[in-house]
Amino acid sequence: MGEVLRVSASSNPKAGAGALAAILRKEGAVEIQAIGAGAVNQAVKAIAIARGFVAPNGIDLVAVPAFTKVEIDGEERTAMRFLVRGR
Amino acid sequence: MGEVLRVSASSNPKAGAGALAAILRKEGAVEIQAIGAGAVNQAVKAIAIARGFVAPNGIDLVAVPAFTKVEIDGEERTAMRFLVRGR
Repeated sequence: MGEVLRVSASSNPKAGAGALAAILRKEGAVEIQAIGAGAVNQAVKAIAIARGFVAPNGIDLVAVPAFTKVEIDGEERTAMRFLVRGR
Repeated sequence: MGEVLRVSASSNPKAGAGALAAILRKEGAVEIQAIGAGAVNQAVKAIAIARGFVAPNGIDLVAVPAFTKVEIDGEERTAMRFLVRGR
């Protein structure tokens, strides 16, 4: 479980979904990190879209959201992490 | 699977998590609906917090996000829905 996808408020959800699906097919799981409401919203959209991308591969994608701390420019911020995996 | 929790941008994530956990323990699943980035963000926080509430009950909570259409004041809006269930 190495790869972390970083999603921002300006990320394209469909492009994010493509990246997510590609990693998921290869690794079986992927983590997404988002800071702020706009980024979290784009991450959720990407996950919803990615479900459709991997469903034909027999993968039923689920997400587990969690809080995490990250440091940006020396300041501690709370980020959301989504552990996404197939079942 | 009857209950739908509606979460807004001004919802308190901890209160939402409490409601979510209560329905989940009783019904085994719950749907959350959120419209807009602020509401989606609060919904994701509520799900993350609820994980901690139900973990002592042996429930490993997962979320499946999906798009849905809702009508508000005669206008069609895209909402996010989270199907939350334990495993």
